[in-house]
Amino acid sequence: MPRISDAKILMIATDGFEQSELEFPRDQLRVKGAEVAVASLDGKPTKGWEGDDWGREAEADLALEAVRVEDYDALVLPGGQINPDVLRIEDKAIETIRAFHESGKVIAAICHAPWLLIEAGVVKGRAMTSFQSIKTDMINAGAIWQDHEVVADAGIVTSRNPDDLKAFISKIVEEIEEGQHAR
Amino acid sequence: MPRISDAKILMIATDGFEQSELEFPRDQLRVKGAEVAVASLDGKPTKGWEGDDWGREAEADLALEAVRVEDYDALVLPGGQINPDVLRIEDKAIETIRAFHESGKVIAAICHAPWLLIEAGVVKGRAMTSFQSIKTDMINAGAIWQDHEVVADAGIVTSRNPDDLKAFISKIVEEIEEGQHAR
Repeated sequence: MPRISDAKILMIATDGFEQSELEFPRDQLRVKGAEVAVASLDGKPTKGWEGDDWGREAEADLALEAVRVEDYDALVLPGGQINPDVLRIEDKAIETIRAFHESGKVIAAICHAPWLLIEAGVVKGRAMTSFQSIKTDMINAGAIWQDHEVVADAGIVTSRNPDDLKAFISKIVEEIEEGQHAR
Repeated sequence: MPRISDAKILMIATDGFEQSELEFPRDQLRVKGAEVAVASLDGKPTKGWEGDDWGREAEADLALEAVRVEDYDALVLPGGQINPDVLRIEDKAIETIRAFHESGKVIAAICHAPWLLIEAGVVKGRAMTSFQSIKTDMINAGAIWQDHEVVADAGIVTSRNPDDLKAFISKIVEEIEEGQHAR
């Protein structure tokens, strides 16, 4: 069984990620011993969104182009209103999500990030949650939408908003320690 | 036949509307003699979004709660990444869109605003366009999505982004002057 302290986790973000949804999982998963790398579109730092304005920058460890999916056990996607809307039309972001899915690795998405899962075509027939505003899109894409702090189905972990972060992170750890997921 | 110079047009916006997508239709339709009222959630001014930051405020003429659909000939919805995402979970905004639809009045939405049309349930089986990032959601909601600067189907006018504003406004005028639309 894989241990969280041996896990390698990728996060993908661009400007407008919800501040806490990148920082809290990144830092908490590192505290638990996981190696967490943040990929941005160009490998440069990205700017968070906090409350109703731009927030702090987050360091990027690599450019999305340089990501090798085989190096990681799990993918964690922070939300925000702007970040997933931008990533959604970046082919490399969507291809990377699909590649994680096809290799049975854990995928976790919070708030508006499940929007990226719609784009990657991995939603249909799965139990999921999301931020309330994209609920209709999730259902139209075939998700079995549930109003819970965290929902996991076949290694896809979703949460609704920053208030759910603790449950989101616990479930990510649990799913990683379960190992590969059949899809 | 109704004339644009006699038309009464409602716009709905909240913070984060795309600056030009509120200002340009509002001002150009007023130049053509239409009466254009902007409704915000609380009747207070709203803050636009321009480029990659907050922009100018727009005056509000009334609160959404005070809107009487029978007073207007058409509804125009500006986009932005934030504005429609917020309005989407405001029941009064969605009910107002539905009421315009049910009375056969012209509805126009640009960029991310067609997202509101998904929520109002008026998309299925109609030719429409939108900002590229919400194309998948439009198709999943049943739209016949087209990559044109403006698409009109049964009095619903949609455009892709601020570059399409001129065509968007011309088509709004044309549809208003055609009168009621069977739905």
